[in-house]
Amino acid sequence: MQNIITLAHGSGGSATLKLIDQVFKKHFNNDILSQGDDCAKLSITNSNNLVFTTDSFVVTPIFFNGGNIGKLAVCGTVNDLSTSGATPLYLSCGFIIEEGFSIEELEKIVEAMSITARECGVQIVTGDTKVVQKGAADKIFINTSGIGIVPDGICISGKNAQVGDKIIISGTIGDHGCSILLERENMGFQAEIKSDCAPLSGLVHDMLEVTSDIHVLRDPTRGGVATTLNEIAFQSNVSIVIEEDKLPIKREVQGVCELLGMDPIYLANEGKLLSFVPAEKVEAVLNVMRKNKYGRDAQIIGEVSKAGEPKVLLKALSGGARIIGLLAGDQLPRIC
Amino acid sequence: MQNIITLAHGSGGSATLKLIDQVFKKHFNNDILSQGDDCAKLSITNSNNLVFTTDSFVVTPIFFNGGNIGKLAVCGTVNDLSTSGATPLYLSCGFIIEEGFSIEELEKIVEAMSITARECGVQIVTGDTKVVQKGAADKIFINTSGIGIVPDGICISGKNAQVGDKIIISGTIGDHGCSILLERENMGFQAEIKSDCAPLSGLVHDMLEVTSDIHVLRDPTRGGVATTLNEIAFQSNVSIVIEEDKLPIKREVQGVCELLGMDPIYLANEGKLLSFVPAEKVEAVLNVMRKNKYGRDAQIIGEVSKAGEPKVLLKALSGGARIIGLLAGDQLPRIC
Repeated sequence: MQNIITLAHGSGGSATLKLIDQVFKKHFNNDILSQGDDCAKLSITNSNNLVFTTDSFVVTPIFFNGGNIGKLAVCGTVNDLSTSGATPLYLSCGFIIEEGFSIEELEKIVEAMSITARECGVQIVTGDTKVVQKGAADKIFINTSGIGIVPDGICISGKNAQVGDKIIISGTIGDHGCSILLERENMGFQAEIKSDCAPLSGLVHDMLEVTSDIHVLRDPTRGGVATTLNEIAFQSNVSIVIEEDKLPIKREVQGVCELLGMDPIYLANEGKLLSFVPAEKVEAVLNVMRKNKYGRDAQIIGEVSKAGEPKVLLKALSGGARIIGLLAGDQLPRIC
Repeated sequence: MQNIITLAHGSGGSATLKLIDQVFKKHFNNDILSQGDDCAKLSITNSNNLVFTTDSFVVTPIFFNGGNIGKLAVCGTVNDLSTSGATPLYLSCGFIIEEGFSIEELEKIVEAMSITARECGVQIVTGDTKVVQKGAADKIFINTSGIGIVPDGICISGKNAQVGDKIIISGTIGDHGCSILLERENMGFQAEIKSDCAPLSGLVHDMLEVTSDIHVLRDPTRGGVATTLNEIAFQSNVSIVIEEDKLPIKREVQGVCELLGMDPIYLANEGKLLSFVPAEKVEAVLNVMRKNKYGRDAQIIGEVSKAGEPKVLLKALSGGARIIGLLAGDQLPRIC
């Protein structure tokens, strides 16, 4: 096979079929995908509680410390399914590739997708490849859409936050945003910061084994913890109070943020979740989270304080408190 | 609202939420979408025969005679679901937008998606918006993924072609490919050729009311009728014979193809389907197709002649026959 992507690979003709066989089917191999029809016939039986989600990924650079755009594309959609309480089952993938892109790099990306999918027990069952002329896209964009099933008795939504709920973050914040920032800019200093890019389906599974009584789960990606908490505050019409000194932040991330005047609470995470849990269940949930490799640094960071006044308050160690809003503007485009 | 897309619209923060409210929710409005969680909770009950598909759309120009990228994105995925025999139910949409894109144009695209979705009774229930810097994408790319249900007793697949099956095309071929070609190039002559871009769910529904005994359905998009027939020949391991003079081709399309040395049998269609039907059912299916506005020019174009030797033969009026293969190379990139 040629070693770069050509327009013919997007023609739907013989070059497309060859690429599908030699790259996609090789790594994503499963019975449903190999049927070769335009649609995947799923084997879901008794599926009353289906959920469906989609995400496109345009991150730059496409390879970064801790992952690449392929791993991110699987994690992002798996995490959206998982934080609705669902067991992720099936993914689609749509590639938009710039003419001239290296097939070797494509294969690395596809391999990462396959490894990550296997880790969370999801199958990539249908796909599509488009190729655009050189200059019409920046290297590669990936869309993943996903289907999962919510087990009976689970009711998780951004609308379900209740006064008294304790709020847990599953680990350190800002790692993904900070790592991309460092990859992208030549900062003139060294800091070993890895993206937290990870699939959270196993962690959510463990939490739901302890109790089905989890009110809200959400992954604080674009816009960070601050933006996600604001969304939940507005969806549930509640006030949220966060204690600044409880936020787990890696020293290196804190250092980079101080240097650049950025706030880690607005930086993207790609392997973290926020969980709203009734106070009487919070210790049990926290314990099980800390036993999972993706929840080791889980921490209670605040609580839902009041109904009827949607806002997020950040209480500083000094005692003062300030309202933190949604991210305005965009300091870091193409973070995911 | 500003009249162009900025990077902030892709931040996940306040500008994103405003765009979602003022453009996407305005047009796609439905109860599932307006829940506002990262996942759509579907209301499918008793769904043993689910199908799932995905397609990204990168067509240029984004507005063309007969449609735009939004209408195309809904039709493409609805047609993939329909040609598996499914009733299309739910779509996701993922937008990748270039910084500086006009919000007015975005709204036209979104409106076309909404109108087309309504025509086929599907709901757009979940979405995602990414914005990339000027020059990192060419205007707008759209991914749609879709979920449908195949009614019990329907078994349609590219694998099911049988010797003796009659092959129907639902109308004139090459219209979409030819219209995009004319839009794109300044040909120095006038020809009024409209893309056939259309949703085929209603047509398939009508056909399946007449008989569930349809073996293969497929929409001949990229690579045209020739490529799609080859895929089916190989999936089913059969020989297919097509009679060239039976192929319905608009005079204008034929004219443009002759001028440019292109073969309409390799040009993309976006509102046509190929159907493989047992001989005893073919007249009934053809009749019902011709009563539907998207099947008015339906025609029997050939049959499955032999098992065990996958190929497609094109019989000319003169009596000669030639093998036609998959599309090799790509004459017309970004056709869809």
